[in-house]
Amino acid sequence: MTTDVAKYRFNHVMYRIKDPKASVAFYRDVLGMKLLETHHSDEAKFSLYFFGYEDPASSGVARLARQGVLELTHNHGSENDPACAYDTGNGDKGGYGHIAITVDDLDAACARFDSLGVKFIKRPTDGRMRHIAFIADPDGYRVEILENPTLKGQQA
Amino acid sequence: MTTDVAKYRFNHVMYRIKDPKASVAFYRDVLGMKLLETHHSDEAKFSLYFFGYEDPASSGVARLARQGVLELTHNHGSENDPACAYDTGNGDKGGYGHIAITVDDLDAACARFDSLGVKFIKRPTDGRMRHIAFIADPDGYRVEILENPTLKGQQA
Repeated sequence: MTTDVAKYRFNHVMYRIKDPKASVAFYRDVLGMKLLETHHSDEAKFSLYFFGYEDPASSGVARLARQGVLELTHNHGSENDPACAYDTGNGDKGGYGHIAITVDDLDAACARFDSLGVKFIKRPTDGRMRHIAFIADPDGYRVEILENPTLKGQQA
Repeated sequence: MTTDVAKYRFNHVMYRIKDPKASVAFYRDVLGMKLLETHHSDEAKFSLYFFGYEDPASSGVARLARQGVLELTHNHGSENDPACAYDTGNGDKGGYGHIAITVDDLDAACARFDSLGVKFIKRPTDGRMRHIAFIADPDGYRVEILENPTLKGQQA
C-alpha cells in the first residue's frame, strides 16, 4: 500500500450558502462558472452544488481529477430562515478570507460586474492596491478579482 | 474594452494562519504542496504564502495562470499571541467549510498521515461516508481527503 504525494491535487473549497437560487445565478451568470454536478439528499436535507471553469463536456476532465472546483452546500430551509446569516470570515476572529478569480481584463470585468448590479467591496480605484478588486457574493463572501497577465491583450 | 468570461479561472482560496512555521511544514511536508511564492510586508506586518501542486520550475505555469492555489496569510505576531485562535468555520454560524485534496489511494494516504502524527477529524472508517477522510491543519482548518479514481491502481 503506497501513496505518491506528487499526485495529490487541490480539488475544491467548500462553503455554505443560504439561498441556492441566488448563489447559482451569481457563480454561473456573473462569474461564468459551469455547474458541474449537483447532489441532493432529502434524507439529510442538504444539497451540494459543484462549480468549475472549463466546460465538463468539452474538457473531458472528471470533477475529481480537476483543480479549481467550488463546492457550495445548501442546508434545506436556510433560504426561508430569517436567522440564517453565515459568518463569511474576515471579522475579528474570522480565519477565512476569500476566493480569487483571474480575469482577462480587470477594468472590463469590473465594468461588466457593475452592469450586472454586483456589489463591490473594493474597486480597483479604492485604496493603494489598484490591481485587484473585491466583490461580494449573495451571502457576502468575498471574491477577489485579479488580472491574469498572460491573457491581457489577447483577442477575445 | 471587452472581457471574455470563458477565460476566467478559479485561481486561489485564502485563509489566515496563526503560525507560519507550523503551517508551511503541514502544507509542504504533509500535503506535499510546493511553496510557490512568499510576500512579506514589514510595513503592513503581514506575510503571504502561496502553495500549489505541480512544481513551478517544471510546469512553467505562472501563479496567476493556475488553478488550485492556496494563499495563507500570516499577520505578524499572531504566533506569539495567546488570544489568537482563528475561527475555522463549521461552528453555529460558520459558513466556511474546508478545502479538499485528491490522492491516489485513500487508505495509503491516511496511513501515511497517521505515521506523520496528523490529527484526524474523520477517518474513512468513521460514520457512513467511507470514501472520505477529514484531517486538521495546525489551526484546525478542515482538509478533506478524497481518492481520485483516475489515479487508483496506477504505478507509483
